This record gives sequence, C-alpha cells and structure tokens, in this order.
Amino acid sequence: MENHIKSWADVAPHLVAVAAGRSPADMVIRGGKLVNVQTRELLDWQVAIAAGRFAYIGPDASHCIGPDTEVIEADGRYLIPGLCDGHMHIESGMLTPAEFAAAVIPHGTTTMFTDPHEIANVLGLRGVRMMHDEALMQPVNIFTQMPSCAPSAPGLETTGFEISADDVAQAMAWPGIIGLGEMMNFPGVVNGDPQMLAEMAATMRAGKTVGGHYASPDKGVAFSAYVAGGAADDHEGTAEADALARTRNGMRSMMRLGSAWYDVESQITAVTQKGLDPRNFILCTDDCHSGTLVNDGHMNRVVRHAIACGCDPLIALQMATINTATHFGLERELGSITPGRRADVILTSDLVTLPIEHVIARGKTVALNGKITVDCPHYDWPDDARQTVRMGKLLDHADFAVPAPKGANSVVAKVIGVVENQAPTEALTAELPVVDGVVEGQGDTYQIALVERHRATGKVVNGFVSGFGYRGRMAIASTVAHDSHHMIVVGTDRALMAKAANRLGEVGGGVTVWKDDAELALVALPIAGLMSDSPAAEVAASADAMVAAMAACGCTLNNAYMQHSLLALVVIPALRISDLGLVDVTKFEITDLFEENT
Amino acid sequence: MENHIKSWADVAPHLVAVAAGRSPADMVIRGGKLVNVQTRELLDWQVAIAAGRFAYIGPDASHCIGPDTEVIEADGRYLIPGLCDGHMHIESGMLTPAEFAAAVIPHGTTTMFTDPHEIANVLGLRGVRMMHDEALMQPVNIFTQMPSCAPSAPGLETTGFEISADDVAQAMAWPGIIGLGEMMNFPGVVNGDPQMLAEMAATMRAGKTVGGHYASPDKGVAFSAYVAGGAADDHEGTAEADALARTRNGMRSMMRLGSAWYDVESQITAVTQKGLDPRNFILCTDDCHSGTLVNDGHMNRVVRHAIACGCDPLIALQMATINTATHFGLERELGSITPGRRADVILTSDLVTLPIEHVIARGKTVALNGKITVDCPHYDWPDDARQTVRMGKLLDHADFAVPAPKGANSVVAKVIGVVENQAPTEALTAELPVVDGVVEGQGDTYQIALVERHRATGKVVNGFVSGFGYRGRMAIASTVAHDSHHMIVVGTDRALMAKAANRLGEVGGGVTVWKDDAELALVALPIAGLMSDSPAAEVAASADAMVAAMAACGCTLNNAYMQHSLLALVVIPALRISDLGLVDVTKFEITDLFEENT
Repeated sequence: MENHIKSWADVAPHLVAVAAGRSPADMVIRGGKLVNVQTRELLDWQVAIAAGRFAYIGPDASHCIGPDTEVIEADGRYLIPGLCDGHMHIESGMLTPAEFAAAVIPHGTTTMFTDPHEIANVLGLRGVRMMHDEALMQPVNIFTQMPSCAPSAPGLETTGFEISADDVAQAMAWPGIIGLGEMMNFPGVVNGDPQMLAEMAATMRAGKTVGGHYASPDKGVAFSAYVAGGAADDHEGTAEADALARTRNGMRSMMRLGSAWYDVESQITAVTQKGLDPRNFILCTDDCHSGTLVNDGHMNRVVRHAIACGCDPLIALQMATINTATHFGLERELGSITPGRRADVILTSDLVTLPIEHVIARGKTVALNGKITVDCPHYDWPDDARQTVRMGKLLDHADFAVPAPKGANSVVAKVIGVVENQAPTEALTAELPVVDGVVEGQGDTYQIALVERHRATGKVVNGFVSGFGYRGRMAIASTVAHDSHHMIVVGTDRALMAKAANRLGEVGGGVTVWKDDAELALVALPIAGLMSDSPAAEVAASADAMVAAMAACGCTLNNAYMQHSLLALVVIPALRISDLGLVDVTKFEITDLFEENT
Repeated sequence: MENHIKSWADVAPHLVAVAAGRSPADMVIRGGKLVNVQTRELLDWQVAIAAGRFAYIGPDASHCIGPDTEVIEADGRYLIPGLCDGHMHIESGMLTPAEFAAAVIPHGTTTMFTDPHEIANVLGLRGVRMMHDEALMQPVNIFTQMPSCAPSAPGLETTGFEISADDVAQAMAWPGIIGLGEMMNFPGVVNGDPQMLAEMAATMRAGKTVGGHYASPDKGVAFSAYVAGGAADDHEGTAEADALARTRNGMRSMMRLGSAWYDVESQITAVTQKGLDPRNFILCTDDCHSGTLVNDGHMNRVVRHAIACGCDPLIALQMATINTATHFGLERELGSITPGRRADVILTSDLVTLPIEHVIARGKTVALNGKITVDCPHYDWPDDARQTVRMGKLLDHADFAVPAPKGANSVVAKVIGVVENQAPTEALTAELPVVDGVVEGQGDTYQIALVERHRATGKVVNGFVSGFGYRGRMAIASTVAHDSHHMIVVGTDRALMAKAANRLGEVGGGVTVWKDDAELALVALPIAGLMSDSPAAEVAASADAMVAAMAACGCTLNNAYMQHSLLALVVIPALRISDLGLVDVTKFEITDLFEENT
C-alpha cells in the first residue's frame, strides 16, 4: 500500500549509470532555468531523472536521453523544487490526507510535515497511525509529527484517548514519523513537567526534530527555559522580535500564512530589513481550510505572499524548500534540485506570481495546469474510525435545560463572549430569566453545550455564549471542537439543539446548522468526526453552504465557524467550555456557571 | 575511559531549571559580544553553562548565578563558537589523537572530523577502532570518519589490512563514527564499482555522511556520476569552478588550508565575489604537520586566512562552526552558542587577527592564552600497534642491489622524477652504469627501495629516483609511506640504506636520516610506524632536525620529506613504487624497471 520510493543508497548504482550516460533516464527536462536553492542562483541547466530521483543536473543532459526517456521542454520556464509545508494539520482542511494531497499537489506542494493532533484526541495512537499510513500511500511526501499534547489541558478536559511518553517513544520507530508535533504545553516545559520532557527526550534520542509551540509574547526567562527543553522550531511567533528571539536561540522560525494566520509579513522583516541569515526561516501554513485550498492555493500562496512582503524570490523559495528539508534532517533527501534527491520539481513561468504549471513528484507528472493527474489512494478507514460519535443515547431538549438555583426568578450567569477576529474570548456575565425553574437565554446570549461523544456517557455540559448574532430558532452543532473534539452545540432552541446533536450522531460527525426545524446545511465529516474523504471542492462547497446557513441564522462574524470550533479550546483565555464544566482559562480551573451572589 | 558528555535529552530538565533560574549554572560568561552564527550577527549577550552545555543565552544571565557559579568576565571580548575542522587526518601530524588534541586545543579547535586512513592501511579496522577510542577519551569532540579505501589502489599494492564494505557497515554502529572517510576511489564510483557503492550505501543507510574526494579537474559527466553515487562533500577542489560545481550539485565544498594545501584563496571567491549562499562552504585542514600546529596554528589559522582572502569574518566563522556541524547532522549538538549545544566557546579580542585567548570546551576551560589547561588522556596502545615494522630479517646491502640484465655494461632504467612543489612525479629514464653485474646510480639519480614491513616477507623492491639533490654517502628511510605505509628507503649507498631500514625496524618506525655511517636524525613514530605519543613540540623539533639532516645530505627541495613519503602513493601519476614493483600510474599497471630496449 505504501507509495514507496527506493532510497538513494538503493538506487545509487542506477543513478551513477544514468549520470555517466550508461543507462537512459526516465525523464529529462531541458530548456529551463534551474532555481538552485543550494547556491541561491539561476542556472541554464538541464535535469535528468531516474528511479524517482534526480540523477544528473548540468548544462547538457543529452547523454541521459534514451529511446524511452520522456523529454519535457521547459521553454524558458523556471524549475523550482517542489514546495514544502514545514508544519501543518491536515485535519484543518476537513480532509483526509489523500484528499488533502489531491487538493494541494496542483499548487505545487510536494512535501508536508503534518501533526495529526486532532485525530490523536479522538482515536489516540491508533488514529495517528491511520493518518500516518494514509500519508505514506500518497504520491507526494507526507511526514508525520507525532502529536505531543493530548490532552492539551490535562485536568480540564477528557479526550477520547491520551498520548503518553511511551506512545511517543513507540511512534518514533514508525517509517513516516519525522519528529514530535508542536510541544504546546509550554508552561509544562518551563516548569519541568516530566511527561513533556520525556516526550521531547524520546524524540531527541531517536535523532528526530522536536516541534515547538510557544504561544506567549514573553521572550524573557520563560522563553529561554522553553528553548533549553529542546524544541527546535516555533511557528507561534507573530512579530519581528519573536523571529529574532527564536533564531538567535538556535530555533528555526516558522512563519505561517494559514487560512486565518497572517504571521509572515510581521516577521520576515528580520530577513528583509534586519538582514539576518535567512537559513533558519521556514514558511508554513499550520491550518488551511478546504476553501483556501480550492480558491487560493497552499504553499504557493505562502511563497508568493513572502515575495510580496519584499523577500527576494530565491530566498523565499529557500524558506519553502531547502531550509525546511535541512531542519528535518532531509537535506540529502529532498528540497533541492540536485543529484540523489527525490525528483520533486515545478515548472513555473514567473518567479513572483508563481503560477504552478507543471508539478513533478518523485519523477512523475502529478499535476498539469492546476489539474491533478495521479491517484491519491485512500486508506481503508475502519468502522471504529468512522463511528466516533458515541453519545450513548438520543438527546432531547431536557438534556440542554439549565436548572436554576431553587426559587430563583433570575440568575447572573457567566457567558463566553466571542470577540470578532480574536481567538481569546471574554468572560462576560448576563442576568438571565428563569422560566419554570430553567434558565433561558435572551437577546444575543444563547445556550452552548458540550456534548460528550467519546465514551458514550450521555453527558451534556451546558452554559451560555454570546457574540454570534444568532436570532430566531436555530442550532448549530460541530464535532470539530478543539482540542478534545467532543461536540459543541450552540443554539437558541433546546429542541433544535437536540436535533442538531442527534444528527451528528447519525452521520458520524461534522457540522450541522438548523433553523426552524429544518437542517439548512450539513458538512459530513465521518472520519473521526473531523474529516471527509470527499474531494476538497465538495467539502469546500458544503463548508460554504454551512457558513451561509450560519449567516441565515443571523450570524455576523467573520470566521464564525472557527470561533464556534474553538469554544472548547481550554488553553486560550478567558472562558471556555469542556466536558468537565465551564473553564476559567485565566486560572486554569473549572468554574461555576453562575456568579456566586446568584 | 570515554570522556562522556551527557546528551541534551539527558540533561534537558537541568538546563531548563538553570535557564528558568531555579538551579545555578556551572559557569556564566558576561560582558562579551556573542558571535551568533545562527543569525550572523553580534549580540551583547551573556551565556550560562550547565552540564557541559549552554543553558541560557540572553541579555542578562544574573538569574543563573549561584554561590558556586564560575563567572568569567569577557571584558568586551568576542565569544565565538569553538572551531570545527571539517575533514582531517590526525596521522599527518605524526601525533596520536591525544597529542594532536593537546596541540590544537590552545588554537581553539574543539571539534574535528578525522579520517584515520593511514592507520587503516597498517592495522585495519582494529587500528581504526584504537584511533576512535582515543578520540573519544579527549576533552574535545573528535568524530571519526570510517576510512573507505584501504588499499587505495587494489592490485597495485598490498596493505597491512584491507577495509571491506562489511567493515564499514560494522563501524557505523560505533559511538564515535560520524560517516565515511573520503571516497577517493572516484574512478571506481564513476564506473559503478560494487564495493565502493556498497560502502557508501552502508553509510547512507546508517544516516551518516559520505565524505568525498574527487581529485580531478574534469567537471563533466564523470564528476556528475561521482555526485550521483552519494558523496556529500569534497575537499579536493582547487579552483573557484570546483567550488561552484560542488555546491551547485548539492555537495558541500570543503576548502582546505593545510601545511601544504592552499585551496581557500582560489575557491572562496565563489562566496566573496560570485555571491553564492555561503551555507555550503566549510573550512578544513586535511593535513597538518606538527610544526604547523606548534608554530602557526590550526583552524584559527584557516579562519584568519579566509578573512584575509576577503571573507566577512562572521561568514568565515560560520564556515568553521555551524556549516560544519550542519553538514554532519550535528547542528543541535555543537557549532553555535545556543541553548542545548555543547558549551564550546572561545574568547578573542579581535575578529580579524583572531587571537585565541580562552578556550572552553564542554563548559570547562581547556586552554588559556595559548597554554592547555587539561589532560588529554592516552589510549593504552597495545604491543601489536607499537610493533608494526615487521621486516622478517635484518637487511644488508645485498638486499638493495639491482642486478643488471646478463652481460649488460649499462642499462636504461626508469627513474621516478621528483618535481619541486608538485605531487605528481615525472617518469624519467637514465642510462646507468653496471658494476659487477649490479646497476649503480649516478649523479642526481640514486636508489629507492620499498621494503615490505607488514607481513615480514623480507621483500625489497628496488628502483631509482632523482630530484632530491642528494650527494655523498647517505640514506633516508621512512615508514610513513602513503598509502600502504610500507617503508621507503632512498640512498646513495646500499649499506647505509640497510642500516637506515634496520634502524626503523628497531625503533618501531618513523624516519631516520644517515650520512657517512652516522644517524643524523631520527623521528621515532612507534605507533603503527606513523605516530608518536610525545608532545607536538617534541615531534616538531625532531621533524625539524630531520629536515635539516636531509639538507645536510644535499637535499634542496621544499617539503622534501613529504615528497619522500609520497613516492609510494600509487594513485597519483606518473611513476611510483610499491611492494609489487614499479608502478606506471598513468596506466595503473606494474611496469619493468628497465626500458624494453635495454
């Protein structure tokens, strides 16, 4: 099943024979300008490919052409190495690795370093292995970073499975594991948490790369302590000073442009203006929605953006090729058009606008003019990966009722306040009426529920949220509910909330929007409740329909769906919800739903 | 015995505690300017060291200072990473690893990548292991490259031992092995020699670095075929075009300044003038005599020279630190002053003249103002490593007699013509007189003999050589006789040649110079006949005396001793001598001593 490419060591005799002219190449590309990211220069060189790897580069590859050699005329176009995404989560596209690959290959992405953190929360090590295995089946290079933090907030939530240091050590021996996924428990590292340090140690002992995630503006002693723990990169920087701190400390600065991350422009000045050695800067996406992949691109979009920010095109390309490969110990395996490396190469007629005209991966044409030309095989996802929404029972409106304190006519409730264009929420309060002993939302304050869906406990945690602008009778439910991925239901009507939740139980997860007793939109994500194995265009279309349905319910926010899916992310302030209750993330503790004086 | 430094993974909890201010550092350096080779900039930063590694770098390390912390005041000096020698042969210094380390530590060299190719020819894998083991005992980092080519010219010489692909595969598991030593059989690689490709494959499969050696100006198809075989670097370039060809092909260009190699100035223009990305350029020495180490320096001499050639000092330092570390997969282990890395750091008051004032390795002061302050422990070299000169019998003048063809009064003999300041020899001829049936040298043509010394066969191969300028009755013998290291004896008097040869048998190898029945000079090299375990200054003094003795015998050449020791190097044209006979290196075949028409 694995889409295997033989190692350089295995095929070296053949590569030598091709380079020497004793055996014909499989493919020769001539008439192009080779972007040499090793030397940072353009060369009028030709390329010969054999056994999926570059066999020869130089001024004249005629001696490598035999009767069966495919000769590609570049016609003056540039040859650039296939693009590498230094850190990303496939699940963010709501797509399986196969469909994600199919979506990004036409954009020139031939290598991804992906952390299946979301599925780890749902299915544990076994889920990571499934992602890893489907990744290895693809015609491009998808390396897996072993997730480090499930749960991401121990004690504040219950995940489907947990990841232990032993799991990490075990995974390091898998063929597609390239390192540890972002170590986001940075307070744990700074405070010497033994499990976090053990996970990083297991990774380092395996000779692999520890991904970092230091999401704090504090670049003082805490940052230094985090660095000393062993994280080799960080993609959480948002300002030039963050990039400086990371590279000066011997980490690589990963600058991201995702669907909702815009951290390149603010950091790339470290190179373009401060003049730092660019070798330690890497471009990545972190999170891309399927709509971004369908409409805007992937790593080509990031490189193009870096160039638009004033970066020299060859340096920007280095940041998405050789720098990335070097970071993960793969500089002799990919990331440049030089002998022995995997033959991943793009033909483009312009180095600034970067049209992706012809994509070759491992020596085979995989996309032409925006259309994929190869299969991206699907893993045979087992039933337990397709039936992960285990609620234990059908819910009804009573499960979403919030009983008031005995005798109260009204209550002062804590309310999660969603803030436009910001990940942190506000901790608000609202005085809410009590009807028949049950607290009712009113105005822009409506109910939120966290429905346990991993262990079929039937547990529902209820609370209140505001800021979406919902009006009328509506409900929205999603099993994408970072990071533990239970089910988040928001609604103005408890019966509709129950219908929405039950609907996700029925289809195995996804997102559903209900208004006035009808389902307006459904994004079915049957795999782990996180991903679809349908093509990106279909998923993007249903996601668009879902956003439109949210608007039809009165929602006025940008990125309303992302806001929804982050309401259980109990590592970002201020107020969140988990299966254990309402969480005060400023104090990292469970808190009561009602104010004390209620 | 091994001078062990715990891994970053092992000490990370302590480094985190030190960086966080919870535990005191072992050492703090403050008041200096930190040369950050990751970002290529100078920072007014302080450094805290614990467990032999950098724990913290930043503007203020006060929080790391405890009552027992050693505080070093840099007083405005620069802090540069300890220097790395990217490729070298310890045996060239005629010193053991311990004494070599003791000689170079005061010059700021804290990391060496060394290929014990010479001892491999004498003692095989076992000899490599001894060098490897003594290397690991030192207070600095000496990584071993497994020798690849013993014999270097199969069929043209007999070495003491041979290295097989299985030997290479076995050595890859040793703790100090970093890769394969220079693959000098480049015609073999180009032609697909299975053993050479198997050695490189074993190295690549172990995830280690294949050292290259492509000693030809041909940068056409043969060079490309060599690259495709897997060599990751090359130090044989001598011109800018060589450096371009190597880096453009994804190899690292190692530029050497050894005692007799001057290949930096001619190649560094690829960076200083052509503006290539400097990341793939590395500085090295390849071969340094003990006199160079005593009088001129080591890697500090190379960096200083690169700067004198117009290279930006910070880029030159990168070429001797982070570039080297990255090449060998050690960028997170050494080569920069950043957290987690081995605390190898030099204090210097000038970045151009580069005085080496204070050297710290693994967090301990190892040299101050040119004086070493630590022990460099000696391996307990066994008898079989100390008694490698096995001639089988005492030689006498008759062993060096060259019988003439029956009835000849004179002969036309082939003569090895030594050329001033060049490694290749000329294939000359001379008409020589015959006295009592024995050919006699005359004028500037005298005898050369290759005395078998590995298997006690008693075999002596005789021939003629010219160009040294020897006069009167003299003889010189050496067991340093690249690459198979038998014994080369040159002399004008057969009885003296026998005395010189027997003398080396008596002392276990080295170099001895005789004139008029007296030994003028002796360099005793009892270990493998290649190395002394005396201090570099003593060895350098006796080498100086040896050179003076050669001059006293009439020798007029620069580097006469090197010329002598290369006369059996049957891979460099045109005429050489081996234990199998006179070798025509232009045809790679054994040739008759006399011209056919004699």
